[in-house]
Amino acid sequence: MKTMNIRKATLEDIKAKALKLAKKKIAFVGSVNAHNAPNIKAMVVAKRDGLKTFYFASNNSALRTEQYQQNKNACIYFKGGPIYRGLMLEGTMEILNDDNSKKLIWKFGMKNIYKNGGINDPDFCVLKFTAKTGRYYYWYETETFEIE
Amino acid sequence: MKTMNIRKATLEDIKAKALKLAKKKIAFVGSVNAHNAPNIKAMVVAKRDGLKTFYFASNNSALRTEQYQQNKNACIYFKGGPIYRGLMLEGTMEILNDDNSKKLIWKFGMKNIYKNGGINDPDFCVLKFTAKTGRYYYWYETETFEIE
Repeated sequence: MKTMNIRKATLEDIKAKALKLAKKKIAFVGSVNAHNAPNIKAMVVAKRDGLKTFYFASNNSALRTEQYQQNKNACIYFKGGPIYRGLMLEGTMEILNDDNSKKLIWKFGMKNIYKNGGINDPDFCVLKFTAKTGRYYYWYETETFEIE
Repeated sequence: MKTMNIRKATLEDIKAKALKLAKKKIAFVGSVNAHNAPNIKAMVVAKRDGLKTFYFASNNSALRTEQYQQNKNACIYFKGGPIYRGLMLEGTMEILNDDNSKKLIWKFGMKNIYKNGGINDPDFCVLKFTAKTGRYYYWYETETFEIE
């Protein structure tokens, strides 16, 4: 296994490691509820662009969607194979209901989830996460970086 | 694979499934930062008692410890093998620095992490999570329950 001394690694090395982690299928998605408490849910990333943009299929009626309407602050976390490796991206979550966004992430199999009209199901919505900063964990070291 | 109709399952069935998930080694731990934004980190559960109490080894200097000092609201999430199964426990996090709590979770191997005196390392602290409610996810159904 290749190891890295995070103190000696350049920011570019760390971003490259982070980008690899950010390609994982499952993200742990964080929100803040009305009582100022954190919530987490594992979600499948429907579409992504680098370290900056991540899309998720959701429901307008979902608990999380309601939370993001009140407080758009969000984070997503990707877990490395070994526990000591992880990536947290911090940013904001938008709730999108326009046709283009829906088409962008729609997959045929999703008709089994959105049973009230498939892509036209009024409960189907798109969550778009935009990252501002990243925090990469490696052993007991961390490195924080901006995301342009 | 055994499947369950969550609508027909009794609360006891669901709690039994939840308890099984809560035995996983890794929990995704949620906090709220000073800017009202959620944070997540994967952590190893050091010790646990049912669905109610979970202990983690941490550092007084850690970002998360500082966040829990300001806002003790916390959640922990366990991911099932298949993505559609998950458990979120909501409650509060305490930061403990007493010897008994430290002895409770101390493991020999941790001396490699707390290098400034092992169990007496002044940076070593215990995070104790106490759950109030649980939320169990199964396919696209969820069930919420109180934890006594």
